[in-house]
Amino acid sequence: MFKLVLVRHGQSQWNLENRFTGWTDVPLSPLGEAEAAAGAKALLDAGLGFDVCYTSYLKRAVKTLDIVLEAMDLMWLPVHKSWRLNERHYGALQGLNKTEMAEKFGEEQVFIWRRSYDVRPPALEQDDPRHPRFDPRYAALTPDELPGVECLKDTVARVLPYWHEVVAPQVLAGKRVLIAAHGNSLRALVKYLDGVADEAIPKLNIPTGVPLVYELDEALKPVKHYYLGDPDEIARQIEAVASQGKAK
Amino acid sequence: MFKLVLVRHGQSQWNLENRFTGWTDVPLSPLGEAEAAAGAKALLDAGLGFDVCYTSYLKRAVKTLDIVLEAMDLMWLPVHKSWRLNERHYGALQGLNKTEMAEKFGEEQVFIWRRSYDVRPPALEQDDPRHPRFDPRYAALTPDELPGVECLKDTVARVLPYWHEVVAPQVLAGKRVLIAAHGNSLRALVKYLDGVADEAIPKLNIPTGVPLVYELDEALKPVKHYYLGDPDEIARQIEAVASQGKAK
Repeated sequence: MFKLVLVRHGQSQWNLENRFTGWTDVPLSPLGEAEAAAGAKALLDAGLGFDVCYTSYLKRAVKTLDIVLEAMDLMWLPVHKSWRLNERHYGALQGLNKTEMAEKFGEEQVFIWRRSYDVRPPALEQDDPRHPRFDPRYAALTPDELPGVECLKDTVARVLPYWHEVVAPQVLAGKRVLIAAHGNSLRALVKYLDGVADEAIPKLNIPTGVPLVYELDEALKPVKHYYLGDPDEIARQIEAVASQGKAK
Repeated sequence: MFKLVLVRHGQSQWNLENRFTGWTDVPLSPLGEAEAAAGAKALLDAGLGFDVCYTSYLKRAVKTLDIVLEAMDLMWLPVHKSWRLNERHYGALQGLNKTEMAEKFGEEQVFIWRRSYDVRPPALEQDDPRHPRFDPRYAALTPDELPGVECLKDTVARVLPYWHEVVAPQVLAGKRVLIAAHGNSLRALVKYLDGVADEAIPKLNIPTGVPLVYELDEALKPVKHYYLGDPDEIARQIEAVASQGKAK
Protein backbone atom coordinates (compact mmCIF):
# COMPACT_ATOMS: atom_id res chain seq x y z
CA MET A 1 0.00 0.00 0.00
CA PHE A 2 1.47 3.34 -1.10
CA LYS A 3 0.47 6.81 0.04
CA LEU A 4 0.60 10.06 -1.87
CA VAL A 5 -0.45 13.47 -0.55
CA LEU A 6 -1.52 16.39 -2.73
CA VAL A 7 -1.88 19.96 -1.48
CA ARG A 8 -3.25 22.82 -3.54
CA HIS A 9 -1.54 26.10 -2.61
CA GLY A 10 -3.39 28.45 -0.30
CA GLN A 11 -5.20 31.57 -1.52
CA SER A 12 -3.02 33.78 -3.71
CA GLN A 13 -3.25 37.52 -4.09
CA TRP A 14 -5.09 37.04 -7.40
CA ASN A 15 -7.42 34.32 -6.02
CA LEU A 16 -8.35 37.04 -3.53
CA GLU A 17 -8.92 39.52 -6.36
CA ASN A 18 -10.78 36.82 -8.35
CA ARG A 19 -8.45 37.16 -11.33
CA PHE A 20 -7.32 34.45 -13.75
CA THR A 21 -3.75 33.67 -12.69
CA GLY A 22 -2.33 30.75 -14.67
CA TRP A 23 1.43 31.08 -14.98
CA THR A 24 1.50 34.60 -13.53
CA ASP A 25 3.78 34.34 -10.51
CA VAL A 26 1.72 36.00 -7.78
CA PRO A 27 2.40 35.48 -4.05
CA LEU A 28 0.17 33.90 -1.44
CA SER A 29 -2.21 36.22 0.41
CA PRO A 30 -1.97 36.30 4.22
CA LEU A 31 -5.00 33.94 4.26
CA GLY A 32 -3.14 31.67 1.84
CA GLU A 33 -0.18 31.46 4.23
CA ALA A 34 -2.59 30.62 7.07
CA GLU A 35 -4.24 27.93 4.91
CA ALA A 36 -0.84 26.35 4.27
CA ALA A 37 -0.13 26.35 8.01
CA ALA A 38 -3.54 24.74 8.66
CA GLY A 39 -2.73 22.09 6.06
CA ALA A 40 0.53 21.37 7.85
CA LYS A 41 -1.33 21.00 11.15
CA ALA A 42 -3.75 18.53 9.56
CA LEU A 43 -0.80 16.48 8.26
CA LEU A 44 0.85 16.51 11.69
CA ASP A 45 -2.43 15.57 13.41
CA ALA A 46 -2.76 12.64 10.98
CA GLY A 47 0.78 11.53 11.85
CA LEU A 48 1.94 11.64 8.23
CA GLY A 49 5.56 11.98 7.24
CA PHE A 50 7.33 12.42 3.90
CA ASP A 51 10.55 11.50 2.15
CA VAL A 52 10.47 13.65 -0.98
CA CYS A 53 8.49 16.66 -2.23
CA TYR A 54 7.53 18.07 -5.59
CA THR A 55 6.26 21.50 -6.51
CA SER A 56 5.99 23.90 -9.43
CA TYR A 57 8.05 26.89 -10.58
CA LEU A 58 5.44 29.27 -9.11
CA LYS A 59 6.02 30.94 -5.76
CA ARG A 60 2.52 30.36 -4.39
CA ALA A 61 3.12 26.60 -4.56
CA VAL A 62 6.77 26.78 -3.43
CA LYS A 63 5.82 28.97 -0.47
CA THR A 64 2.98 26.64 0.48
CA LEU A 65 5.45 23.76 0.53
CA ASP A 66 8.01 25.82 2.49
CA ILE A 67 5.39 26.63 5.13
CA VAL A 68 4.32 22.99 5.40
CA LEU A 69 7.90 21.71 5.67
CA GLU A 70 8.84 24.31 8.29
CA ALA A 71 5.76 23.52 10.41
CA MET A 72 6.43 19.77 10.13
CA ASP A 73 10.15 20.20 10.96
CA LEU A 74 11.04 18.64 7.60
CA MET A 75 13.02 21.45 5.98
CA TRP A 76 15.82 19.01 5.18
CA LEU A 77 13.67 17.00 2.73
CA PRO A 78 14.59 17.06 -0.95
CA VAL A 79 12.30 19.36 -2.95
CA HIS A 80 12.08 19.06 -6.73
CA LYS A 81 10.52 21.89 -8.76
CA SER A 82 9.16 21.51 -12.27
CA TRP A 83 7.25 23.69 -14.73
CA ARG A 84 5.20 20.54 -15.45
CA LEU A 85 3.44 21.03 -12.11
CA ASN A 86 2.59 24.69 -12.89
CA GLU A 87 -1.00 25.86 -12.96
CA ARG A 88 -2.83 25.56 -16.29
CA HIS A 89 -1.72 28.43 -18.56
CA TYR A 90 -4.75 30.69 -18.92
CA GLY A 91 -3.50 32.50 -22.03
CA ALA A 92 -4.83 35.99 -22.68
CA LEU A 93 -7.24 35.67 -19.72
CA GLN A 94 -4.34 35.95 -17.26
CA GLY A 95 -4.85 39.02 -15.10
CA LEU A 96 -8.55 39.46 -15.96
CA ASN A 97 -11.29 39.42 -13.34
CA LYS A 98 -13.48 36.30 -13.37
CA THR A 99 -16.68 38.10 -12.37
CA GLU A 100 -16.17 40.92 -14.88
CA MET A 101 -15.54 38.34 -17.56
CA ALA A 102 -18.76 36.54 -16.58
CA GLU A 103 -20.70 39.79 -16.86
CA LYS A 104 -19.15 40.53 -20.24
CA PHE A 105 -19.14 37.08 -21.88
CA GLY A 106 -21.72 35.24 -19.77
CA GLU A 107 -21.29 32.71 -17.01
CA GLU A 108 -21.50 29.85 -19.44
CA GLN A 109 -18.54 31.02 -21.54
CA VAL A 110 -16.45 31.62 -18.42
CA PHE A 111 -17.42 28.18 -17.09
CA ILE A 112 -16.29 26.68 -20.41
CA TRP A 113 -12.97 28.53 -20.25
CA ARG A 114 -12.48 27.52 -16.62
CA ARG A 115 -13.68 23.96 -16.64
CA SER A 116 -14.13 22.47 -20.11
CA TYR A 117 -11.67 19.72 -20.79
CA ASP A 118 -10.56 20.60 -24.30
CA VAL A 119 -11.61 24.17 -25.13
CA ARG A 120 -8.72 26.62 -24.92
CA PRO A 121 -9.24 30.28 -23.96
CA PRO A 122 -7.68 32.89 -26.29
CA ALA A 123 -3.88 32.44 -26.45
CA LEU A 124 -1.16 34.94 -25.58
CA GLU A 125 0.48 36.31 -28.70
CA GLN A 126 4.10 35.22 -29.25
CA ASP A 127 5.27 38.81 -28.76
CA ASP A 128 3.15 39.44 -25.67
CA PRO A 129 5.58 40.31 -22.85
CA ARG A 130 3.57 37.93 -20.62
CA HIS A 131 4.51 35.01 -22.89
CA PRO A 132 6.61 32.47 -20.93
CA ARG A 133 9.29 32.48 -23.63
CA PHE A 134 10.50 35.78 -22.14
CA ASP A 135 10.83 34.31 -18.64
CA PRO A 136 14.32 32.92 -17.84
CA ARG A 137 12.90 30.13 -15.70
CA TYR A 138 11.47 28.52 -18.87
CA ALA A 139 14.59 29.02 -20.99
CA ALA A 140 15.29 25.27 -21.15
CA LEU A 141 11.86 24.44 -22.64
CA THR A 142 11.45 23.71 -26.34
CA PRO A 143 9.06 25.92 -28.37
CA ASP A 144 6.62 22.97 -28.43
CA GLU A 145 6.62 22.77 -24.66
CA LEU A 146 6.12 26.52 -24.06
CA PRO A 147 2.40 27.21 -23.84
CA GLY A 148 0.68 30.43 -24.89
CA VAL A 149 -2.53 28.94 -23.47
CA GLU A 150 -3.76 25.56 -22.29
CA CYS A 151 -7.00 23.69 -21.89
CA LEU A 152 -7.02 21.08 -19.12
CA LYS A 153 -6.29 18.38 -21.70
CA ASP A 154 -3.05 20.20 -22.52
CA THR A 155 -2.22 20.41 -18.82
CA VAL A 156 -2.82 16.66 -18.43
CA ALA A 157 -0.47 16.06 -21.38
CA ARG A 158 2.43 17.88 -19.71
CA VAL A 159 1.76 16.79 -16.10
CA LEU A 160 1.58 13.06 -16.83
CA PRO A 161 5.13 12.62 -18.19
CA TYR A 162 6.41 14.09 -14.91
CA TRP A 163 4.18 11.72 -12.95
CA HIS A 164 5.24 8.67 -14.91
CA GLU A 165 8.96 9.44 -15.25
CA VAL A 166 9.75 11.22 -11.99
CA VAL A 167 7.12 10.90 -9.25
CA ALA A 168 5.58 7.44 -9.73
CA PRO A 169 8.95 5.62 -9.57
CA GLN A 170 9.58 7.28 -6.20
CA VAL A 171 6.16 6.22 -4.90
CA LEU A 172 6.82 2.65 -6.11
CA ALA A 173 10.21 2.73 -4.38
CA GLY A 174 8.34 3.23 -1.11
CA LYS A 175 9.02 6.95 -0.76
CA ARG A 176 6.30 8.99 0.93
CA VAL A 177 5.59 11.73 -1.60
CA LEU A 178 4.11 15.19 -1.05
CA ILE A 179 3.09 17.32 -4.05
CA ALA A 180 2.30 21.01 -3.51
CA ALA A 181 0.80 22.38 -6.70
CA HIS A 182 -2.20 24.09 -8.29
CA GLY A 183 -5.92 23.64 -8.83
CA ASN A 184 -5.55 22.45 -12.40
CA SER A 185 -2.24 20.60 -12.32
CA LEU A 186 -3.70 18.60 -9.40
CA ARG A 187 -7.02 18.12 -11.22
CA ALA A 188 -4.97 16.78 -14.15
CA LEU A 189 -3.27 14.26 -11.89
CA VAL A 190 -6.49 13.30 -10.08
CA LYS A 191 -8.24 12.83 -13.43
CA TYR A 192 -5.58 10.32 -14.40
CA LEU A 193 -5.35 8.52 -11.05
CA ASP A 194 -9.11 8.15 -10.60
CA GLY A 195 -9.91 7.68 -14.29
CA VAL A 196 -12.35 10.62 -14.25
CA ALA A 197 -14.20 10.92 -17.57
CA ASP A 198 -13.67 14.06 -19.69
CA GLU A 199 -17.36 14.90 -19.17
CA ALA A 200 -17.13 14.60 -15.38
CA ILE A 201 -13.96 16.64 -14.82
CA PRO A 202 -15.66 20.11 -14.96
CA LYS A 203 -17.41 19.32 -11.67
CA LEU A 204 -14.22 18.28 -9.85
CA ASN A 205 -12.99 21.06 -7.55
CA ILE A 206 -10.05 20.87 -5.13
CA PRO A 207 -10.03 23.19 -2.10
CA THR A 208 -6.94 25.23 -1.20
CA GLY A 209 -4.55 24.14 1.54
CA VAL A 210 -6.43 20.92 2.43
CA PRO A 211 -4.23 17.81 2.17
CA LEU A 212 -5.69 15.18 -0.17
CA VAL A 213 -4.43 11.69 0.70
CA TYR A 214 -4.36 8.90 -1.88
CA GLU A 215 -3.84 5.29 -0.88
CA LEU A 216 -2.59 3.37 -3.92
CA ASP A 217 -2.11 -0.31 -4.70
CA GLU A 218 0.98 -1.86 -6.31
CA ALA A 219 -0.21 -0.74 -9.75
CA LEU A 220 -0.64 2.78 -8.31
CA LYS A 221 -4.41 2.49 -8.69
CA PRO A 222 -6.25 4.38 -5.93
CA VAL A 223 -7.77 2.19 -3.22
CA LYS A 224 -9.28 5.26 -1.61
CA HIS A 225 -8.70 8.95 -1.18
CA TYR A 226 -9.76 11.47 1.43
CA TYR A 227 -9.18 15.03 2.59
CA LEU A 228 -7.63 15.73 5.98
CA GLY A 229 -9.69 18.19 7.99
CA ASP A 230 -13.23 19.08 9.01
CA PRO A 231 -15.69 17.70 6.38
CA ASP A 232 -18.16 20.61 6.61
CA GLU A 233 -15.38 23.17 6.22
CA ILE A 234 -13.95 21.25 3.25
CA ALA A 235 -17.38 21.10 1.56
CA ARG A 236 -17.70 24.87 2.04
CA GLN A 237 -14.27 25.43 0.49
CA ILE A 238 -15.03 23.20 -2.53
CA GLU A 239 -18.26 25.17 -3.11
CA ALA A 240 -16.31 28.46 -2.88
CA VAL A 241 -13.91 27.27 -5.62
CA ALA A 242 -16.82 26.20 -7.83
CA SER A 243 -18.51 29.62 -7.44
CA GLN A 244 -15.58 31.77 -8.58
CA GLY A 245 -16.70 32.13 -12.19
CA LYS A 246 -20.21 33.41 -11.43
CA ALA A 247 -21.49 36.90 -12.23
CA LYS A 248 -22.51 38.93 -9.17
CA MET B 1 35.36 34.40 -15.27
CA PHE B 2 33.08 32.48 -12.92
CA LYS B 3 31.29 33.77 -9.85
CA LEU B 4 30.34 31.91 -6.71
CA VAL B 5 28.51 33.38 -3.72
CA LEU B 6 28.67 31.97 -0.19
CA VAL B 7 26.32 33.01 2.61
CA ARG B 8 26.67 31.89 6.21
CA HIS B 9 23.26 31.50 7.84
CA GLY B 10 22.05 34.31 10.09
CA GLN B 11 22.14 34.11 13.88
CA SER B 12 20.51 30.95 15.23
CA GLN B 13 18.78 30.54 18.55
CA TRP B 14 21.90 28.84 19.93
CA ASN B 15 24.29 31.43 18.45
CA LEU B 16 22.20 33.86 20.49
CA GLU B 17 22.59 31.68 23.58
CA ASN B 18 26.32 31.23 22.81
CA ARG B 19 26.03 27.44 22.76
CA PHE B 20 27.94 24.98 20.59
CA THR B 21 25.46 23.92 17.89
CA GLY B 22 27.09 21.67 15.31
CA TRP B 23 24.53 19.29 13.82
CA THR B 24 21.83 20.24 16.32
CA ASP B 25 18.95 21.49 14.18
CA VAL B 26 18.08 24.82 15.82
CA PRO B 27 16.09 27.55 14.07
CA LEU B 28 17.19 31.06 13.17
CA SER B 29 16.60 33.76 15.77
CA PRO B 30 14.53 36.80 14.69
CA LEU B 31 17.86 38.64 14.21
CA GLY B 32 19.05 35.75 12.06
CA GLU B 33 16.02 36.10 9.79
CA ALA B 34 16.70 39.84 9.53
CA GLU B 35 20.35 39.13 8.68
CA ALA B 36 19.26 36.81 5.87
CA ALA B 37 16.95 39.52 4.52
CA ALA B 38 19.82 42.05 4.70
CA GLY B 39 22.03 39.60 2.80
CA ALA B 40 19.34 39.33 0.11
CA LYS B 41 19.19 43.12 -0.16
CA ALA B 42 22.98 43.30 -0.59
CA LEU B 43 22.75 40.70 -3.39
CA LEU B 44 19.95 42.64 -5.09
CA ASP B 45 21.83 45.94 -4.73
CA ALA B 46 24.86 44.29 -6.34
CA GLY B 47 22.68 43.10 -9.24
CA LEU B 48 23.61 39.45 -8.75
CA GLY B 49 21.46 36.60 -9.99
CA PHE B 50 21.66 32.83 -9.59
CA ASP B 51 20.88 29.64 -11.46
CA VAL B 52 21.26 26.96 -8.81
CA CYS B 53 21.54 26.83 -5.02
CA TYR B 54 23.05 24.49 -2.47
CA THR B 55 22.45 24.22 1.24
CA SER B 56 22.74 21.79 4.15
CA TYR B 57 20.25 19.53 5.92
CA LEU B 58 19.97 22.04 8.79
CA LYS B 59 17.02 24.40 8.99
CA ARG B 60 19.02 27.51 9.86
CA ALA B 61 20.78 27.28 6.49
CA VAL B 62 17.68 26.18 4.54
CA LYS B 63 15.64 29.02 6.03
CA THR B 64 18.39 31.54 5.25
CA LEU B 65 18.29 30.38 1.64
CA ASP B 66 14.47 30.46 1.56
CA ILE B 67 14.49 34.06 2.82
CA VAL B 68 17.10 35.09 0.25
CA LEU B 69 15.26 33.42 -2.64
CA GLU B 70 11.91 34.91 -1.64
CA ALA B 71 13.37 38.43 -1.34
CA MET B 72 15.14 38.05 -4.71
CA ASP B 73 12.01 36.65 -6.40
CA LEU B 74 13.90 33.46 -7.25
CA MET B 75 11.81 30.85 -5.45
CA TRP B 76 11.68 28.77 -8.63
CA LEU B 77 15.43 28.05 -8.59
CA PRO B 78 16.60 24.49 -8.01
CA VAL B 79 17.83 23.96 -4.44
CA HIS B 80 20.00 20.97 -3.56
CA LYS B 81 20.48 19.97 0.07
CA SER B 82 23.32 17.83 1.36
CA TRP B 83 24.60 16.71 4.75
CA ARG B 84 28.07 17.44 3.34
CA LEU B 85 27.35 21.16 3.73
CA ASN B 86 26.28 20.76 7.38
CA GLU B 87 28.08 22.62 10.14
CA ARG B 88 31.10 20.89 11.68
CA HIS B 89 29.89 18.23 14.11
CA TYR B 90 30.83 19.47 17.58
CA GLY B 91 30.52 16.10 19.30
CA ALA B 92 29.80 16.08 23.03
CA LEU B 93 30.16 19.88 23.15
CA GLN B 94 26.84 20.31 21.30
CA GLY B 95 24.42 22.20 23.53
CA LEU B 96 27.09 23.50 25.93
CA ASN B 97 27.67 27.23 26.53
CA LYS B 98 30.89 28.59 25.02
CA THR B 99 31.56 31.09 27.82
CA GLU B 100 30.88 28.57 30.58
CA MET B 101 33.20 26.13 28.83
CA ALA B 102 35.88 28.84 28.67
CA GLU B 103 35.52 29.49 32.40
CA LYS B 104 35.73 25.77 33.15
CA PHE B 105 38.42 24.61 30.72
CA GLY B 106 40.16 27.90 29.89
CA GLU B 107 39.91 30.12 26.84
CA GLU B 108 42.84 28.38 25.22
CA GLN B 109 41.21 24.94 25.32
CA VAL B 110 37.94 26.33 23.94
CA PHE B 111 39.85 28.17 21.22
CA ILE B 112 41.56 24.89 20.31
CA TRP B 113 38.21 23.08 20.17
CA ARG B 114 36.67 25.87 18.11
CA ARG B 115 39.47 26.74 15.78
CA SER B 116 42.29 24.19 15.68
CA TYR B 117 42.49 22.43 12.36
CA ASP B 118 42.99 18.87 13.49
CA VAL B 119 42.12 18.52 17.19
CA ARG B 120 38.71 16.95 17.76
CA PRO B 121 36.57 17.81 20.78
CA PRO B 122 35.22 14.85 22.81
CA ALA B 123 32.98 12.65 20.62
CA LEU B 124 29.35 11.70 21.12
CA GLU B 125 29.01 8.10 22.29
CA GLN B 126 27.46 5.73 19.75
CA ASP B 127 24.43 5.26 22.02
CA ASP B 128 24.00 8.97 22.78
CA PRO B 129 20.50 9.91 21.55
CA ARG B 130 22.07 13.01 19.96
CA HIS B 131 24.18 10.78 17.67
CA PRO B 132 23.21 11.39 14.03
CA ARG B 133 22.73 7.66 13.44
CA PHE B 134 19.36 8.02 15.19
CA ASP B 135 18.23 10.84 12.87
CA PRO B 136 16.25 9.64 9.79
CA ARG B 137 17.73 12.38 7.61
CA TYR B 138 21.11 10.64 7.82
CA ALA B 139 19.78 7.12 7.27
CA ALA B 140 21.48 6.82 3.87
CA LEU B 141 24.97 7.55 5.24
CA THR B 142 27.47 4.76 5.83
CA PRO B 143 28.85 4.26 9.38
CA ASP B 144 32.16 5.75 8.15
CA GLU B 145 30.40 8.89 6.96
CA LEU B 146 28.37 9.41 10.16
CA PRO B 147 30.38 11.63 12.50
CA GLY B 148 30.26 11.52 16.29
CA VAL B 149 32.54 14.58 16.25
CA GLU B 150 34.67 16.44 13.73
CA CYS B 151 37.70 18.69 13.66
CA LEU B 152 37.80 21.15 10.78
CA LYS B 153 40.06 18.77 8.86
CA ASP B 154 37.28 16.18 9.00
CA THR B 155 34.79 18.78 7.78
CA VAL B 156 37.08 19.65 4.86
CA ALA B 157 37.27 15.95 4.00
CA ARG B 158 33.50 15.62 3.65
CA VAL B 159 32.78 19.05 2.11
CA LEU B 160 35.33 18.77 -0.72
CA PRO B 161 33.86 15.69 -2.46
CA TYR B 162 30.58 17.62 -2.74
CA TRP B 163 32.41 20.64 -4.12
CA HIS B 164 34.36 18.60 -6.68
CA GLU B 165 31.62 16.21 -7.76
CA VAL B 166 28.49 18.37 -7.54
CA VAL B 167 29.09 22.11 -7.25
CA ALA B 168 32.28 22.79 -9.23
CA PRO B 169 30.93 21.16 -12.44
CA GLN B 170 27.94 23.51 -12.27
CA VAL B 171 30.19 26.54 -11.83
CA LEU B 172 32.31 25.39 -14.78
CA ALA B 173 29.14 24.95 -16.84
CA GLY B 174 28.53 28.67 -16.37
CA LYS B 175 25.85 28.35 -13.70
CA ARG B 176 25.72 31.13 -11.14
CA VAL B 177 25.91 29.26 -7.84
CA LEU B 178 24.73 30.33 -4.39
CA ILE B 179 25.70 28.27 -1.32
CA ALA B 180 23.92 28.93 1.98
CA ALA B 181 25.72 27.04 4.70
CA HIS B 182 27.57 27.28 8.02
CA GLY B 183 30.59 28.92 9.62
CA ASN B 184 32.75 25.83 9.40
CA SER B 185 31.51 24.17 6.22
CA LEU B 186 32.18 27.51 4.49
CA ARG B 187 35.58 27.89 6.21
CA ALA B 188 36.36 24.40 4.88
CA LEU B 189 35.51 25.48 1.34
CA VAL B 190 37.33 28.83 1.65
CA LYS B 191 40.40 27.05 3.01
CA TYR B 192 40.49 24.90 -0.11
CA LEU B 193 39.68 27.68 -2.61
CA ASP B 194 42.19 30.16 -1.21
CA GLY B 195 44.80 27.57 -0.21
CA VAL B 196 44.81 28.78 3.39
CA ALA B 197 47.49 27.02 5.44
CA ASP B 198 46.45 24.79 8.34
CA GLU B 199 48.20 27.21 10.72
CA ALA B 200 46.36 30.24 9.36
CA ILE B 201 42.83 28.84 9.35
CA PRO B 202 42.09 29.45 13.09
CA LYS B 203 42.11 33.20 12.43
CA LEU B 204 39.65 33.01 9.52
CA ASN B 205 36.14 34.06 10.61
CA ILE B 206 33.09 34.45 8.37
CA PRO B 207 30.30 36.82 9.48
CA THR B 208 26.65 35.72 9.41
CA GLY B 209 24.33 36.73 6.58
CA VAL B 210 26.94 38.71 4.62
CA PRO B 211 27.30 37.45 1.01
CA LEU B 212 30.90 36.49 0.17
CA VAL B 213 31.56 36.72 -3.56
CA TYR B 214 34.32 34.72 -5.24
CA GLU B 215 35.48 35.47 -8.76
CA LEU B 216 37.17 32.38 -10.15
CA ASP B 217 39.29 31.67 -13.24
CA GLU B 218 38.83 28.71 -15.60
CA ALA B 219 40.74 26.47 -13.18
CA LEU B 220 38.36 27.69 -10.42
CA LYS B 221 41.24 29.49 -8.72
CA PRO B 222 40.07 32.68 -6.97
CA VAL B 223 40.98 35.90 -8.77
CA LYS B 224 39.50 37.90 -5.91
CA HIS B 225 36.86 37.70 -3.23
CA TYR B 226 34.91 40.32 -1.32
CA TYR B 227 31.98 40.73 1.03
CA LEU B 228 28.88 42.64 -0.05
CA GLY B 229 27.92 45.32 2.45
CA ASP B 230 29.32 48.07 4.66
CA PRO B 231 33.02 47.32 5.42
CA ASP B 232 32.95 48.71 9.00
CA GLU B 233 29.85 46.68 9.86
CA ILE B 234 31.42 43.54 8.36
CA ALA B 235 34.64 44.05 10.37
CA ARG B 236 32.53 44.39 13.52
CA GLN B 237 30.68 41.16 12.72
CA ILE B 238 33.89 39.23 12.05
CA GLU B 239 35.26 40.40 15.42
CA ALA B 240 32.02 39.31 17.14
CA VAL B 241 32.38 35.78 15.71
CA ALA B 242 36.04 35.62 16.81
CA SER B 243 35.08 36.65 20.39
CA GLN B 244 32.47 33.96 21.03
CA GLY B 245 34.81 31.58 22.85
CA LYS B 246 36.09 34.09 25.42
CA ALA B 247 35.44 33.95 29.15
CA LYS B 248 33.47 36.90 30.54
